[in-house]
Amino acid sequence: MSEKATIILHSGDMDKAYSALIIGNGALAMGMDVSIFFTFWGLERLKKNKLESGALSKMNLFGLGKWLIKRKMKKSGVASLNKLLDNYLELGGKILACDMTMDIMGIDKEDLRDDVITEYCAVGTYVQEARESEVTLFI
Amino acid sequence: MSEKATIILHSGDMDKAYSALIIGNGALAMGMDVSIFFTFWGLERLKKNKLESGALSKMNLFGLGKWLIKRKMKKSGVASLNKLLDNYLELGGKILACDMTMDIMGIDKEDLRDDVITEYCAVGTYVQEARESEVTLFI
Amino acid sequence: MSEKATIILHSGDMDKAYSALIIGNGALAMGMDVSIFFTFWGLERLKKNKLESGALSKMNLFGLGKWLIKRKMKKSGVASLNKLLDNYLELGGKILACDMTMDIMGIDKEDLRDDVITEYCAVGTYVQEARESEVTLFI
Repeated sequence: MSEKATIILHSGDMDKAYSALIIGNGALAMGMDVSIFFTFWGLERLKKNKLESGALSKMNLFGLGKWLIKRKMKKSGVASLNKLLDNYLELGGKILACDMTMDIMGIDKEDLRDDVITEYCAVGTYVQEARESEVTLFI
Repeated sequence: MSEKATIILHSGDMDKAYSALIIGNGALAMGMDVSIFFTFWGLERLKKNKLESGALSKMNLFGLGKWLIKRKMKKSGVASLNKLLDNYLELGGKILACDMTMDIMGIDKEDLRDDVITEYCAVGTYVQEARESEVTLFI
Repeated sequence: MSEKATIILHSGDMDKAYSALIIGNGALAMGMDVSIFFTFWGLERLKKNKLESGALSKMNLFGLGKWLIKRKMKKSGVASLNKLLDNYLELGGKILACDMTMDIMGIDKEDLRDDVITEYCAVGTYVQEARESEVTLFI
């Protein structure tokens, strides 16, 4: 069985979404299985057209607007979140959507990018993945 | 020996307290041993009558007041934090209180819900639990 | 091979820097190998004269100024961040600096405390360390 990394993305901050996907892609590139479990504000990022949204990002506090962040990322050769997500899926990464968060926040399947979501699931699925993982992170 | 999950709850945010207890209960339900180590702002939640307090929660930033969060949680069939904590203790989960945080923040035992705390301890106890754990999270 | 703890310090909050170093020192004292990988706002703390800086710390929200935090820490017998870092290095802890963060944020080597940095590296180095670790945390 492959080694595994299981990441909870709880935060809605843009920089945290970058960290989750960069770590996920790094682990996939090194032959590990990876699941990212999107909960609470993290799940908001899986709404249609929300992945790249700069709103509410802590990065803005530093006077870096969404436009500037993207420009800096591009200049540094860092891919956009959409590109990172595409790579993540191509490398076989799994996207798990927390159905309890959907209930609490009144999010419907139609609101979400169903095409990128591997599975809608609850905490039991997360625990099952995490207990078999070499790397577990809460972001 | 049972598999184990060891969680540090550092944040005082209500949504993070939910995450810690929901993951903890999920792991207990699947036969794992679980310890939650309450430090810094997390320990504030173990003060008498503070577990359900909505103050300072990031959730409020989204225009969801304490009352609204609780109503949404209830409507979604999600238990209150007090109920989740009761279940956690019934299932054998351990609550560890960071004694260094008590020193720094001037918190006395009388301020805390001593009835739910399994042990007052320091980082050595945490490391000992964490190194034997399949799942380690910092929330 | 020794047991290992690998910590990502993503946050720039002073309290989170304390947590990373206290856990790191605790694990080192118990014979584990420890690496702390400084990324995003965490890397800002490795700039010259920035480790003890109280700016932007969430602690300030609670009405505790930088001066007050340090006084409380001292009174409680808790070492300063600089002292904790010295101990961490003496005990053999590794400091990894994220070179992608340097690119994005325009941070040069001259801006950083090169004397304490074990290695400048990317996500691959992190994954390699983390997959061999008993304890993995994202702070």
